[in-house]
Amino acid sequence: MSELEHISSLQNPRIKQLVKLRDRRPRDEAGVFLVEGYRQIRRALEKGVPLSELYYAPSWFLGENEPALIEQAVAAGARLFELSREAFAKVAYRERPDGLLAVAPQWRRMLDEIPLQASPFLLVVEAIEKPGNLGTILRSADAAGCQAVIVCDPVTDLFNPNVVRASTGVLFSVPCIVDESPHVLAWLRDKGIRTIATTPAATTPYSAADLRGPLAIVMGSEQYGLSEFWLKNADLPVRIPMAGQADSLNVAMATIITLFEAVRQRDP
Amino acid sequence: MSELEHISSLQNPRIKQLVKLRDRRPRDEAGVFLVEGYRQIRRALEKGVPLSELYYAPSWFLGENEPALIEQAVAAGARLFELSREAFAKVAYRERPDGLLAVAPQWRRMLDEIPLQASPFLLVVEAIEKPGNLGTILRSADAAGCQAVIVCDPVTDLFNPNVVRASTGVLFSVPCIVDESPHVLAWLRDKGIRTIATTPAATTPYSAADLRGPLAIVMGSEQYGLSEFWLKNADLPVRIPMAGQADSLNVAMATIITLFEAVRQRDP
Repeated sequence: MSELEHISSLQNPRIKQLVKLRDRRPRDEAGVFLVEGYRQIRRALEKGVPLSELYYAPSWFLGENEPALIEQAVAAGARLFELSREAFAKVAYRERPDGLLAVAPQWRRMLDEIPLQASPFLLVVEAIEKPGNLGTILRSADAAGCQAVIVCDPVTDLFNPNVVRASTGVLFSVPCIVDESPHVLAWLRDKGIRTIATTPAATTPYSAADLRGPLAIVMGSEQYGLSEFWLKNADLPVRIPMAGQADSLNVAMATIITLFEAVRQRDP
Repeated sequence: MSELEHISSLQNPRIKQLVKLRDRRPRDEAGVFLVEGYRQIRRALEKGVPLSELYYAPSWFLGENEPALIEQAVAAGARLFELSREAFAKVAYRERPDGLLAVAPQWRRMLDEIPLQASPFLLVVEAIEKPGNLGTILRSADAAGCQAVIVCDPVTDLFNPNVVRASTGVLFSVPCIVDESPHVLAWLRDKGIRTIATTPAATTPYSAADLRGPLAIVMGSEQYGLSEFWLKNADLPVRIPMAGQADSLNVAMATIITLFEAVRQRDP
């Protein structure tokens, strides 16, 4: 293993910085984000995310595979820090820490980096507020086989620890692009990709729309739904017929329903 | 208003009991459960849930409609308790308390109480572990127009505070029946209701199955999927085709996909 640093003081600057990285501004200023827990770190390594630092505290370990994972991270270039039990408790943001916390550099992908197939199938989400919803939406896009998720005008950032966690590693594999709505619309039109926007105000049921061919499904925010911009500019507004009380479907649920109807129709 | 009791001591037996009610055993022994927050309590009152006690602390209120809600609860028979700010902080289980917490009697519905239509559409879930998932599943069943949710061999109980919260009030409206799997299967067969079981091991895609007519969709637990009992006895096993990593769809997501495909097929 490479050189190893031990940290037990809660006043250590690295400990303080790790706690700060839970918040967006310090995260963006440093250009990094947190990946906590065995499973997430393993996924990050599998997907080639270059972890820069790995913090661990053996007394929190839950299994026996942690040393192998640590070796793997070091082999991939991570700098190693062993923390005291108390120091790790301070930096962990999960309720049940498992003694592993990594720091990785943020990335930024551009629209033109999306690997477009003959018949692109994309998800566009606008101004999602809750990290848990964005993480779940990333999972849904992965399960549906979307080639990318385009996040317009985000309220929560992609690298929020709860997005990382809720995405169960999909953040590391499905290309996610952050951009402004007008730019995204212009790009989609340029590529000949039709936009389907879900809104309760539409008359066409989502399952009556033709969801084959080059397609981007556009979903709005939790509280406000889609902006006027997308409602006005999308090629076809569709609605999801609902029984029951008005708020039974949240944005993550509406997204998965629409995505899987598209999958059904596109099945060769 | 009716007689009002003030509580400020954190040692008050009612305060201690409210904290205990977060756990299943004391909840079941007392035969009651907690409903926290303005929105949930309003929903409970709308659906005629007979709140027995209402605890409130004005210094936590977020809006101006709380007094009207309190009057409504009292008119419906709730006993009223005003708590000090500290006492309320102790009994609140939500991260951001809004100064309202009610106690309501648990209920138990039987299979024969399900309001069966000409073509029943039911959801059966087996051994769900996470309260958040069960709550989300209840919302999905409501949005899809299921006439009831049958919870077999539950791991989390229906009256867990996080089920109540995650269901956003659906627990108060959609009939939920708790029973054992063999009894449920016998009842479904007796009523001529076909069972569709989702499992990754099936060969038929869910969307290729005929989901019209009397139908119960059966979903398994988070960790183990469906038990041998349901896999062996269901009329038709189906699978949800998935791209991406193996665990991108959790049970709540798989449930909503299957329910809404049934809705699509059953649309008159």
